Amino acid sequence: MGKVIRVTIWNEFRHEKSQDRTGEIVRSIYPEGMHKTIGAELAAPDLEIRYATLDEPEHGLPDEVLNSTDVLIWWGHMAHGEVRDELVDKIQRRILSGMGLIVLHSGHFSKIFRRMMGTSCSLLWREVGEKERIWTVEPAHPIARGVPATFTLPNVEMYGERFDIPQDGRIIFLSWYEGGNVFRSGVAFERGHGRIFYFSPGHETYPIFKDENVIRIIGNAVRWAAPEDWYEISCPNSPAPEEIRTPDPNRK
Amino acid sequence: MGKVIRVTIWNEFRHEKSQDRTGEIVRSIYPEGMHKTIGAELAAPDLEIRYATLDEPEHGLPDEVLNSTDVLIWWGHMAHGEVRDELVDKIQRRILSGMGLIVLHSGHFSKIFRRMMGTSCSLLWREVGEKERIWTVEPAHPIARGVPATFTLPNVEMYGERFDIPQDGRIIFLSWYEGGNVFRSGVAFERGHGRIFYFSPGHETYPIFKDENVIRIIGNAVRWAAPEDWYEISCPNSPAPEEIRTPDPNRK
Amino acid sequence: MGKVIRVTIWNEFRHEKSQDRTGEIVRSIYPEGMHKTIGAELAAPDLEIRYATLDEPEHGLPDEVLNSTDVLIWWGHMAHGEVRDELVDKIQRRILSGMGLIVLHSGHFSKIFRRMMGTSCSLLWREVGEKERIWTVEPAHPIARGVPATFTLPNVEMYGERFDIPQDGRIIFLSWYEGGNVFRSGVAFERGHGRIFYFSPGHETYPIFKDENVIRIIGNAVRWAAPEDWYEISCPNSPAPEEIRTPDPNRK
Amino acid sequence: MGKVIRVTIWNEFRHEKSQDRTGEIVRSIYPEGMHKTIGAELAAPDLEIRYATLDEPEHGLPDEVLNSTDVLIWWGHMAHGEVRDELVDKIQRRILSGMGLIVLHSGHFSKIFRRMMGTSCSLLWREVGEKERIWTVEPAHPIARGVPATFTLPNVEMYGERFDIPQDGRIIFLSWYEGGNVFRSGVAFERGHGRIFYFSPGHETYPIFKDENVIRIIGNAVRWAAPEDWYEISCPNSPAPEEIRTPDPNRK
Repeated sequence: MGKVIRVTIWNEFRHEKSQDRTGEIVRSIYPEGMHKTIGAELAAPDLEIRYATLDEPEHGLPDEVLNSTDVLIWWGHMAHGEVRDELVDKIQRRILSGMGLIVLHSGHFSKIFRRMMGTSCSLLWREVGEKERIWTVEPAHPIARGVPATFTLPNVEMYGERFDIPQDGRIIFLSWYEGGNVFRSGVAFERGHGRIFYFSPGHETYPIFKDENVIRIIGNAVRWAAPEDWYEISCPNSPAPEEIRTPDPNRK
Repeated sequence: MGKVIRVTIWNEFRHEKSQDRTGEIVRSIYPEGMHKTIGAELAAPDLEIRYATLDEPEHGLPDEVLNSTDVLIWWGHMAHGEVRDELVDKIQRRILSGMGLIVLHSGHFSKIFRRMMGTSCSLLWREVGEKERIWTVEPAHPIARGVPATFTLPNVEMYGERFDIPQDGRIIFLSWYEGGNVFRSGVAFERGHGRIFYFSPGHETYPIFKDENVIRIIGNAVRWAAPEDWYEISCPNSPAPEEIRTPDPNRK
Repeated sequence: MGKVIRVTIWNEFRHEKSQDRTGEIVRSIYPEGMHKTIGAELAAPDLEIRYATLDEPEHGLPDEVLNSTDVLIWWGHMAHGEVRDELVDKIQRRILSGMGLIVLHSGHFSKIFRRMMGTSCSLLWREVGEKERIWTVEPAHPIARGVPATFTLPNVEMYGERFDIPQDGRIIFLSWYEGGNVFRSGVAFERGHGRIFYFSPGHETYPIFKDENVIRIIGNAVRWAAPEDWYEISCPNSPAPEEIRTPDPNRK
Repeated sequence: MGKVIRVTIWNEFRHEKSQDRTGEIVRSIYPEGMHKTIGAELAAPDLEIRYATLDEPEHGLPDEVLNSTDVLIWWGHMAHGEVRDELVDKIQRRILSGMGLIVLHSGHFSKIFRRMMGTSCSLLWREVGEKERIWTVEPAHPIARGVPATFTLPNVEMYGERFDIPQDGRIIFLSWYEGGNVFRSGVAFERGHGRIFYFSPGHETYPIFKDENVIRIIGNAVRWAAPEDWYEISCPNSPAPEEIRTPDPNRK
């Protein structure tokens, strides 16, 4: 509708710089970092995309950035503990006020996702490059628009049930894994006045963020999660709109 | 069934000791503290009741107490911020493992309730001693057993909507206030392997914890929230139960 | 977005023609029937509005009308039992395929609403013209757009809890009544690929469908419930997308 | 607790009598009918088990049987359409009043399950005898008591997503199929004052109702669904509990 959505893609950006074998693989797939690939793949006239990473000052999310972000995309893995609690507090407050949050893959264990869920967000995992088949459970949901009834990713890290999340997660996608596991791989929540989408594909050593369906889903989620309005969080003393005739025994 | 439920009633226990007019009123109703009145009212052969308060060492909840608690009842108000985050972490982990949590009245703004919800838990409030009428929305729920279809409390602090909680809260009770507000006053959640019940009546300056229906509801909630089993929180690497034939391109 | 939503407003249209005192009152408020007033009030460039009533052939909803309806608004009261089951079957199928359904007031007891809910949809009621105060519980929901935090209707029929509906109803509005009751007065559901909104205000003997907020809510609900796509309902035999190696013991 | 649960196991009982190849297979596994095997496997001191089948008078469920049933187990497949609507009405009313309903396998398409859900209850299916692996998603739920984290059935009919059910179904079990599908295979609902559990395993040509875990799950579900109390369904005119001062403009 002509409205531009201000998206900030946050990446831990450590695997890409690591000097081990994993670092090599990740760099070969994502030479400028996963965030830049995701951003390039999402690029569209209705999206204004910025980037932020852990090792920048204020983790790349100073107030002027956070407070001008409509939808925050989050990828983190090995350094969740380094994200400062003060920033997590601010992001939570921004989400409750209306900001969308898209959490990818290993972000299930990020401070911000666990904060929003209230649960451990634990799961089973296995890293052997097996095949994943994704099923669309709610084709009429905006996040599933244009996504086929089922599609595969040739090599992934397995994330399996039990996934410890609250029960009001709207299940958009369910995954089947070659090795025998299943997973609620695409789940949508509303918290406060904001919307949250968790999507499990996105392991750093496979080119998952170049997959057409994965990108379509993330793009749909961004547009679904973008707020129409912003709301103040307050807990006000509120005068009675109707007449009260009961006398307060504590006031004489 | 012969099984005894180990209940710990936590009270901030500051209003009762305060030297202002409120303190006087609270002491006149609850001479030994709200926790002691709640405990005395709940007393039953299947409950083993202990007490804990903010100003005790470790806020009265050292590991040996917390780890032998089946259901924790929580009343706090003016000093939420003084509860140490390390304790909140431990309580959250205990709930996710199976412990029940009953949050009363102003505990809606406690660190532990907000932690479990992920939301601000904000609401409207008004303290003029008006009448509250409570409606039982789910009479077949264990928490509503023996509770009439509707009952009143003659003087309360008003808590009104919008109450910022997640949408999977099972609404057991809804309240009407003389001054024109409404509230989801009894709401049940499950998080991890634990059960949580929030109940809004319980303002310190009225004898609400001596009301027969209020006590019945809290007693029902304790029995509903008591765990049958305990579960470990872990996020294990999990071998494939089925054969994987796809070769991992990253392993040669 | 340029897309026109095809709305059909269905009205039982019996009270308006009745020769009793109620009929007189209803005619004085809605001279051409409630459906025509609702349609006139909703009129907007993005809505194409048609009308249907019980006593027309096929209750005004022959296949060519139903199958070109995006959102169906339903008001019924004294003659729910006269709606033919075959039509209810067709409406249900159309909703599951994507059509929106807005059920107003006494429509809570219509065959189509009870069919979609699976419950009795019973409630408490009282007709003494008392005041209703409506609270917006989810201001960020599209149905609440532009609706104040609270507003009143000076005279209504009371509908009170317990309202027997499924628990996944998203509560958008909660009502307070002067006489002491509360009600989940605006509740949103999704069933199959369609969206359903129940809104309780709308008693025939008061000019409720001329209230600005009531009309805004119905208009918002129409736009929220309008489908983006249509889906076929089928239960197909589905070939295996992955290789099966287990031999079927029943096939030799 | 000394209380005996009155269980009625309803079986269509047609496959067992059919003169085709399927009939032969079914008889070889369930010589007296699936209902009798389920009943024998469930037998326990706290259960009083009766049987009912389609071809008996009133489908084996005359009022005196239905009205003394606490939990009804339902297996049907080829003759759903033969179940009379009047009986479905009665069963629905009994469930809304408190009765538990356990729906097995092809019962997903029974009139009573679709009535309670309001949706089409459609799914994907395939009958090639593949392997199914079931995952316990909510180990702390009473229905999962004593059930392992995962277990397999060597040969089953596949039921796959998208399963068209309402979103408040509490997912207790999720299934993985060798052929690549996934399914919400154990889902719990509450409707009215009654509890409903759908469990997908149970194809007639494999000895699934002799599997230890399947039987444990059905037995757990029976105990979970058994009502504590019964509730009348009514929609009463309800006098105001609080004083109304607004004059009714329609009453002079």
